[in-house]
Amino acid sequence: MTVTTSPEPDGAYLDHAATTPMSAAALAAFVAEAQRTGNASSLHSAGRASRRAVEEARETVAHALGARPSEVIFTSGGTEADNLAIKGIFWGRRAQDTRRTRVLVSAVEHHAVLDPAFWLAGHAGAEIVLLPVDGEGRLDLDALRAELAAHGDETALISVMWANNEVGTIQPVREVVRAARHYGIPVHTDAVQAVGQVEVDFTASGVDAMTISGHKLGGPTGVGALLARRDLALDAVLHGGGQERGVRSGTLDTASIAAFGVATRHAVDCLPKRAARLTALRDDLVARVREADPQAVLRGADPASGDRLPGNAHFTFPGAEGDSLLYLLDSAGVQASTGSACQAGVPQPSHVLLAMGVPEAEARGALRFTLGATSTPADVDRLVAALPQVVTRARAAGLVSGRALGSAS
Amino acid sequence: MTVTTSPEPDGAYLDHAATTPMSAAALAAFVAEAQRTGNASSLHSAGRASRRAVEEARETVAHALGARPSEVIFTSGGTEADNLAIKGIFWGRRAQDTRRTRVLVSAVEHHAVLDPAFWLAGHAGAEIVLLPVDGEGRLDLDALRAELAAHGDETALISVMWANNEVGTIQPVREVVRAARHYGIPVHTDAVQAVGQVEVDFTASGVDAMTISGHKLGGPTGVGALLARRDLALDAVLHGGGQERGVRSGTLDTASIAAFGVATRHAVDCLPKRAARLTALRDDLVARVREADPQAVLRGADPASGDRLPGNAHFTFPGAEGDSLLYLLDSAGVQASTGSACQAGVPQPSHVLLAMGVPEAEARGALRFTLGATSTPADVDRLVAALPQVVTRARAAGLVSGRALGSAS
Repeated sequence: MTVTTSPEPDGAYLDHAATTPMSAAALAAFVAEAQRTGNASSLHSAGRASRRAVEEARETVAHALGARPSEVIFTSGGTEADNLAIKGIFWGRRAQDTRRTRVLVSAVEHHAVLDPAFWLAGHAGAEIVLLPVDGEGRLDLDALRAELAAHGDETALISVMWANNEVGTIQPVREVVRAARHYGIPVHTDAVQAVGQVEVDFTASGVDAMTISGHKLGGPTGVGALLARRDLALDAVLHGGGQERGVRSGTLDTASIAAFGVATRHAVDCLPKRAARLTALRDDLVARVREADPQAVLRGADPASGDRLPGNAHFTFPGAEGDSLLYLLDSAGVQASTGSACQAGVPQPSHVLLAMGVPEAEARGALRFTLGATSTPADVDRLVAALPQVVTRARAAGLVSGRALGSAS
Repeated sequence: MTVTTSPEPDGAYLDHAATTPMSAAALAAFVAEAQRTGNASSLHSAGRASRRAVEEARETVAHALGARPSEVIFTSGGTEADNLAIKGIFWGRRAQDTRRTRVLVSAVEHHAVLDPAFWLAGHAGAEIVLLPVDGEGRLDLDALRAELAAHGDETALISVMWANNEVGTIQPVREVVRAARHYGIPVHTDAVQAVGQVEVDFTASGVDAMTISGHKLGGPTGVGALLARRDLALDAVLHGGGQERGVRSGTLDTASIAAFGVATRHAVDCLPKRAARLTALRDDLVARVREADPQAVLRGADPASGDRLPGNAHFTFPGAEGDSLLYLLDSAGVQASTGSACQAGVPQPSHVLLAMGVPEAEARGALRFTLGATSTPADVDRLVAALPQVVTRARAAGLVSGRALGSAS
């Protein structure tokens, strides 16, 4: 069976940070493996064939990201990899040195990092320190250094994402590693949004562990990996058959892993060309959104600074509710997000924007546009054509609902 | 794209308990969803379409297994569901009643149940009680009742599998539920091997939680579910975006979930016919293996008792090493297992056989043959044709290695 159709979402899909189409090549790799039978832990020939496919994908992922094959731990996705990193490193490092109970995470981390950290506080005696960011969402390195000067020897791990999923700000991960090294603190980074958008090299970055995800780079959902140095003390989160050097049990998902390997290699191989194309498209989007609504405020780093993901544009529209904007745009065939899809539906302003110092009322008007491999100028045209009327209607709805709710802000 | 080829392993694949072919219908469902883009947590139309596919699969799985849709928590597979059950129920029940620190598991559970339990002992103050089994691998209910009479009020949960993955013995789960109820103890059962082989009804069984897995019933690897009563106190194991009513975070794997739904329905719909066919085929296999090697000992419950999975046959071959048998059979185009694929490669006798009282030397000669949807009489013919020579050669190898190793037994 060959896959001939390249998947394309209907309308203008501007939510590639939530999930991006699975490439035809990745889907073909999935199908090829799914049509063979064999558990990669089985010793017979069917099992060994499955194992070979897993190990080839492991080499591919490692090579694409500057890691060694033995540093790749396949998981069911980014959330599991983040849980493994936060909990696994905490338990591992604290077991080596019981004073180490502090967990340092940036205030703008994804919930897949924040929530495991707070769970450790409730269940394992961890103390969580939220590291502040500046107005563009960038980690405050001075605050980190001050925290380490006071409590470096009590710190079990630091987790700072490679790039933020909402506003696209790229974090100074190498400086974090430099600051942590002196105190013997392992550093984890969630690079889910970064791979395929900017250059990511595991070894060169100096981090001890890095999260990556399949469906954010053209692979399938339900697969990802934690890259982890072999000398990192890392406890398991899922226990059982002892797969993945005992750190992640569960039958290896050969078909998804093979597809993930294909997608990762492709995303990294295409990076320079794609990044340039998406940067130009995003800059055009930003300029034209500002033109369409002069009140719109771009959030996150200046696109010209190089500290922003190529595919990310994020605005707040004063006086409009993000949810209203989202639904009205959707009716016009334009699909965007108010922020992290995982938190969508929860009517509270983004913790990322609040950490950046955006007032709550303004944060409620957030809308994120994210571009990916299948994005075209026509997508931007469609957004810009729909936007003025959408913003006007959303502002009118905001006034009505503001009146109805009284002074709630 | 339509999937026309039904996947068939080469040779005689007699290891369906390790993994069974993904059905063409399930693969087609996967491909159809993978060609659409949308995160099921996104609010726009692409996200809502993905969400609909997930909810349809949830209803399908629930309906097939006698559960309510709201009781289905999708996971990345059986191992994750077992971890969620053991850890999540332990934390949930102990939070309600801090005296409850005991975890009762049968001695023949899969490592995906045993290992989380022992991890809780090391990390969360749990006391693990291994419940004994009889010579056929059946739970000793009197021992359970005695344990509960002494410590019922200190028990956080009981986990007893529906059917054993190595010897196929079906456990008295309803009696376990009956015994536990009086003490307010939640009961979990790992039904990974049972669904599609015997009738499984979540509500009728009375259990509080049940593990199921996709790739054991014709669905994809990397997806499964924990069925859990809504009134069960259950903590999360993977924290983050709050999917699956906050109990299992991570982007919903829509394509795999849709395929899992199709496979589950098919497995349950075909059950009566398939079970009869596999029972006859298995009985033939058992009789002819015994004929081919009169020393072979069938382990587990008498096939005539009704307490054995239709597709399971498990033998020990005195004087032969299971691994030697496995490799020699593989060379003859017959794929079998020494037991759980997840523990394969680890040169120690099965904990299941040891718990059944099989002496270690005999346990080393274990070989499991498991049948599934694609099994045919030709598979059995091929096994029986190869077996006599394979057993003879394995016994000869065993003698040599026994001499070489001296008196190690």
